[in-house]
Amino acid sequence: MRNLKMIVRYDGTEFCGWQTQPGVRTVQQTVEQAIQSITQETRVRANCSGRTDAGVHAIGQVFNFYTGTRLDGATLVKAVNAKLPDDVAVTSCEEAGQAFDANRDAVKKLYRYVINDTRIPDPFQRRYAWQPRRRVDTERMHRAAQCLLGRHDFRCFETQWPNRLSSVRTIKHIAVTRHDDCAWVEVEADGFLYNMVRAITGTLYLIGHNYWPEEKMRDVLEGMDRREAGPTAPPQGLFLVRVTY
Amino acid sequence: MRNLKMIVRYDGTEFCGWQTQPGVRTVQQTVEQAIQSITQETRVRANCSGRTDAGVHAIGQVFNFYTGTRLDGATLVKAVNAKLPDDVAVTSCEEAGQAFDANRDAVKKLYRYVINDTRIPDPFQRRYAWQPRRRVDTERMHRAAQCLLGRHDFRCFETQWPNRLSSVRTIKHIAVTRHDDCAWVEVEADGFLYNMVRAITGTLYLIGHNYWPEEKMRDVLEGMDRREAGPTAPPQGLFLVRVTY
Repeated sequence: MRNLKMIVRYDGTEFCGWQTQPGVRTVQQTVEQAIQSITQETRVRANCSGRTDAGVHAIGQVFNFYTGTRLDGATLVKAVNAKLPDDVAVTSCEEAGQAFDANRDAVKKLYRYVINDTRIPDPFQRRYAWQPRRRVDTERMHRAAQCLLGRHDFRCFETQWPNRLSSVRTIKHIAVTRHDDCAWVEVEADGFLYNMVRAITGTLYLIGHNYWPEEKMRDVLEGMDRREAGPTAPPQGLFLVRVTY
Repeated sequence: MRNLKMIVRYDGTEFCGWQTQPGVRTVQQTVEQAIQSITQETRVRANCSGRTDAGVHAIGQVFNFYTGTRLDGATLVKAVNAKLPDDVAVTSCEEAGQAFDANRDAVKKLYRYVINDTRIPDPFQRRYAWQPRRRVDTERMHRAAQCLLGRHDFRCFETQWPNRLSSVRTIKHIAVTRHDDCAWVEVEADGFLYNMVRAITGTLYLIGHNYWPEEKMRDVLEGMDRREAGPTAPPQGLFLVRVTY
């Protein structure tokens, strides 16, 4: 059996997240069915870098799967895309070592959260950004975010803690930048807790429009209590951008 | 009564075009109802620069309406947007002269047609671009398009000709340009025939991937026969960008 690594992008709006669940439309099931229809195998299992929630998008989600097909990567990309609906597309396919595991071997992942913060929200962005109708100060948010850099216990940003063995993660990069009528919150880490980027964004948002002082972020982190952080920002602003191995 | 001029943008995907029709969701009806609920008037009539078809988008559609309200423009924008669904937004409102007619007084209108022409279509653009999965040569298309500049009988690009008094229009600007993974066809004219930009785009598309020679465009124009032009490109790539008065 070959072990193949695929990169996939999807508009998460009409998916109930990555992971297969009975009775609902998920990315995993959609991708597995498309591959199966090409390779004529009855059981293909797509193992992703980390599942995304309902409504969350991906530009560079990665998964691996074992297959007996002899088709080369470029042919598989073309054939699988011809079977996929238009809200999901495979962008690359390459041979991976037998032991490669897209989930376990991920060194870091980059997420981007997009806030379209004009007073008049842009109808063309409503599926791909949070639109709070309130301008945020990105420089202030960027400064406040820097105390999250490095290795910390991030349980203050985890919905329903504890649901992982450990809530310690290492943030390698965090930046808040302006892109015309949008603020981007980008977080790259060796792993993420449940809803972590959305809770960080919700907290930064309250700091960004001066509801909270910049220093509040450190208090939240040190408090280790989810109730002290800001709200969980809605899913449609979140993108899994890149996974590094 | 005051005569107000509003600019509106909308994602046309879930509208059956601009014009009110019984039993379907249209931009006109949606906008009129939002305004009526603010001004408390029973009959507001939004008169637009030119109706858009089902699935076509607008960045800068313009309409005027007569109203007795005393609310100022900025307040009306805010109040009306609060009533509108998130796929349509009013971006400005200003006082117009009593005689101003958004349809009759338009000097020129600019339409943009977006073709996402990568072999792997981008899921995030599927609602806002045509995705033929075939790369086009924008420089070739641009050269071919230039013979359309000026005053001509454009009946070769009109669906169901004749349906206007005259099929003579003046194209003031036409350009095909590349924007990363998209080709843009922009046409600015003093008026447009039914499906004209989409038929021009369908013709340019065939020239753009070398199915037809560049010179074919002049033959199509001079032939004055819709059957000699290319197919009508699908609605989701078309945007009404700007109306000049």
